[in-house]
Amino acid sequence: MKNFTSVKDVDNVEQLVKEAIELKRNPFAHQHLGKYKTIGLFFFNPSLRTRLSMQKAATNIGLNVIVMNVGSQGWKIEFEDGQIMDGNAAEHIKEGAAVMSQYCDIIAVRSFPELKNRELDYEEKVLSQFVKNATVPIISLESATLHPLQSLADLMTIREHQITSYPKVVLTWAPHPRALPQAVANSFVEWMKAAEVNFIVTHPEGYELAPQFSAGVKIEYDQSKAFEDADFVYAKNWSSYNQYGKVLSIDKKWMVDSSKMVITNQAKFMHCLPVRRNVVVSDAVIDGPDSFVIKQAENRIYSAQIVLKKLLEYDQ
Amino acid sequence: MKNFTSVKDVDNVEQLVKEAIELKRNPFAHQHLGKYKTIGLFFFNPSLRTRLSMQKAATNIGLNVIVMNVGSQGWKIEFEDGQIMDGNAAEHIKEGAAVMSQYCDIIAVRSFPELKNRELDYEEKVLSQFVKNATVPIISLESATLHPLQSLADLMTIREHQITSYPKVVLTWAPHPRALPQAVANSFVEWMKAAEVNFIVTHPEGYELAPQFSAGVKIEYDQSKAFEDADFVYAKNWSSYNQYGKVLSIDKKWMVDSSKMVITNQAKFMHCLPVRRNVVVSDAVIDGPDSFVIKQAENRIYSAQIVLKKLLEYDQ
Amino acid sequence: MKNFTSVKDVDNVEQLVKEAIELKRNPFAHQHLGKYKTIGLFFFNPSLRTRLSMQKAATNIGLNVIVMNVGSQGWKIEFEDGQIMDGNAAEHIKEGAAVMSQYCDIIAVRSFPELKNRELDYEEKVLSQFVKNATVPIISLESATLHPLQSLADLMTIREHQITSYPKVVLTWAPHPRALPQAVANSFVEWMKAAEVNFIVTHPEGYELAPQFSAGVKIEYDQSKAFEDADFVYAKNWSSYNQYGKVLSIDKKWMVDSSKMVITNQAKFMHCLPVRRNVVVSDAVIDGPDSFVIKQAENRIYSAQIVLKKLLEYDQ
Repeated sequence: MKNFTSVKDVDNVEQLVKEAIELKRNPFAHQHLGKYKTIGLFFFNPSLRTRLSMQKAATNIGLNVIVMNVGSQGWKIEFEDGQIMDGNAAEHIKEGAAVMSQYCDIIAVRSFPELKNRELDYEEKVLSQFVKNATVPIISLESATLHPLQSLADLMTIREHQITSYPKVVLTWAPHPRALPQAVANSFVEWMKAAEVNFIVTHPEGYELAPQFSAGVKIEYDQSKAFEDADFVYAKNWSSYNQYGKVLSIDKKWMVDSSKMVITNQAKFMHCLPVRRNVVVSDAVIDGPDSFVIKQAENRIYSAQIVLKKLLEYDQ
Repeated sequence: MKNFTSVKDVDNVEQLVKEAIELKRNPFAHQHLGKYKTIGLFFFNPSLRTRLSMQKAATNIGLNVIVMNVGSQGWKIEFEDGQIMDGNAAEHIKEGAAVMSQYCDIIAVRSFPELKNRELDYEEKVLSQFVKNATVPIISLESATLHPLQSLADLMTIREHQITSYPKVVLTWAPHPRALPQAVANSFVEWMKAAEVNFIVTHPEGYELAPQFSAGVKIEYDQSKAFEDADFVYAKNWSSYNQYGKVLSIDKKWMVDSSKMVITNQAKFMHCLPVRRNVVVSDAVIDGPDSFVIKQAENRIYSAQIVLKKLLEYDQ
Repeated sequence: MKNFTSVKDVDNVEQLVKEAIELKRNPFAHQHLGKYKTIGLFFFNPSLRTRLSMQKAATNIGLNVIVMNVGSQGWKIEFEDGQIMDGNAAEHIKEGAAVMSQYCDIIAVRSFPELKNRELDYEEKVLSQFVKNATVPIISLESATLHPLQSLADLMTIREHQITSYPKVVLTWAPHPRALPQAVANSFVEWMKAAEVNFIVTHPEGYELAPQFSAGVKIEYDQSKAFEDADFVYAKNWSSYNQYGKVLSIDKKWMVDSSKMVITNQAKFMHCLPVRRNVVVSDAVIDGPDSFVIKQAENRIYSAQIVLKKLLEYDQ
């Protein structure tokens, strides 16, 4: 693996999941891979799980870690080429990424979309400029449109806890007071398409995901129907792709609660976190025995660590 | 020891102090205890000594350290149970603490009071929700009402530098332009009550500390009288507990200066720092030969380290 | 070496450069020097290269690293002695530096000038108060008037890539929309004066540097003339020293572009970064084969590391 920015960087998804699960048994076995090497974590946006799990994973594999909140600690970066830089940006990504590559053996970047201009966000300007201008591997810590470390952890969780070999997995939109990115949903769709699962997405009309991700995926606008026989229910809010960045509905009847979970095949409840209780999911469901959100979060360590392992091995 | 949030978590205070002092002679002797383990330091508020000394202590004992400024780098956390989370908070402490426990073997938290609602502050909502929802040991890096790592360092300093076996220790209120928490004072009172010292508190009327901490402690409203024969003078401002969070007085005659120190038995001057010079204490006193504030600060390393040692040993 | 705050702290500049260049071949050879020791990096201002390169260098030499953004994470610090501290500052540098010295074996500080009061800035109050009150070595990560780690990396870069033994080095002022410190320019002048190079400075009238640094240096107000036969062109903006902190000109004809580089002896282009493209330097020049800005940035690791090595060895 050369970079890790989407499922497209992965040769064999199920094999990667298998190896990630194996890592849990012996997380410190590969410390030699990171020896004398440094990973830089560059955050343009807030982060809890991604920040902590990547630090943990990097330490497990013997890497030195540098964390930087680019916005508040460094210089404003220009991502467009050919600019006369007489505005706010003091540094161009060309130098920024090239310089970071002098100090870091791996660069990991978190950069959310602005949710104002769809074309700009879906171009993945920030991430792609890092890929283009860095001379070391790039890891996405969630980009404008994707969150592959999360999806890898999600698929790990499904594989660890599935009862049938071809489980039914439902991604359900859920209400939220604010406009959120589509990244987690897009990414989950990508990974489910690459995996052997019976996958279906349910959301209100108007919340269709970007066609480059959702093409070929079953969509069911009736949440109850979608939940029938489900083995895994993955709840997540996203703002509209069609009316870009808009909150079209906060309809509480889309919240995942016990009355809906009973329709399922005693489905495991999943969410990437952070989650708004009693808005996205009821207390009863997330606190119940079929809630797997904390196990998902634990798997973030090993999804990050297997990616580090692959990048460090490729480099050798 | 399972957690470290107040003197109540300590079986034998004097024994703990003894072991902390012993650590100074050989601070790197226990690096195996921290091996492959991670401590997360979570700051809701500013910190210099606590931040640096805990990082130093953790490194001394072989721990990997993750530092996070929760407010600016993560998500706003909800601490009340049963809420419909459609406001500012994006994450509930139930998930927050459970997730942190996946990545950290010890969680340390700093969270100041708001000084607006006494009941809320004295409930210790933030700290107690961490204790309740985390699955790993919790260390207080100063909570709404207590600062036990400071008090342990203070008692170490007294034991190292006392001349008599039963020293007279005076905690004196001192003026300050802003409303400060009662945490350092409450905590010092708790620890002095648990130690073998002749302890007395002096402050203007209206600055009585919370009865759950001050019960049984000698109070002297005449500062000069309190200072007579003192071996240690510990200065600290706090805002009123009775008129909660109010600054009732900035009377400069309560400042600790040389004219007052001469009343004492050549007392050692102590303060937890940061200290406002020529408001809380005069330059002459804090710069003088009997000022022990820097030695107190040094002891913060070993008070933190002995706590880490106890928590890691308990865990084994 | 006891501290590293200017070229004056260095016995033999050329020897130091030589040893820094040697470090590149074997950067991990001196890990024993840093063992069990901690460096604290204290930032009052933004930083990318300095922050990352110093962390990398410190790790290379075996040091534990603590990074702190003093402004946002700690207490506001008072740098004047004898104050009645009833204003914004909660901590005096006397305690601050003494306390940091308890936790850190080396203290590194970045503190920019305010560019309002020339005397105050050129007194180097912040840095000198750290030197005065700390009990451990101090490294400047760029102070109000100097940036010696940058200059050492610059001289390394010149020595590594010079073709003639006595290269012509030109420091040229370049336009910039904002008022910038004189630190990089002052420092480069200091180091070039201490090195064996044919050095010349070119800038518009009114941009003369402080006489304590520029005394004895050749100044040429005609940029084209200065560039004749140049082996290295170092571009940098600074605000006026005489009309202190003022932007007197943003004249684009001072920008370094290809039409000017052709006058030189195929000079290497240098800049400390961050750089504003098409304001300070054209895309064509900085993207061209004679641009050495990324190599300069790489050398920041080894300029930092040789300084750490000297300080740690001195300490033994």
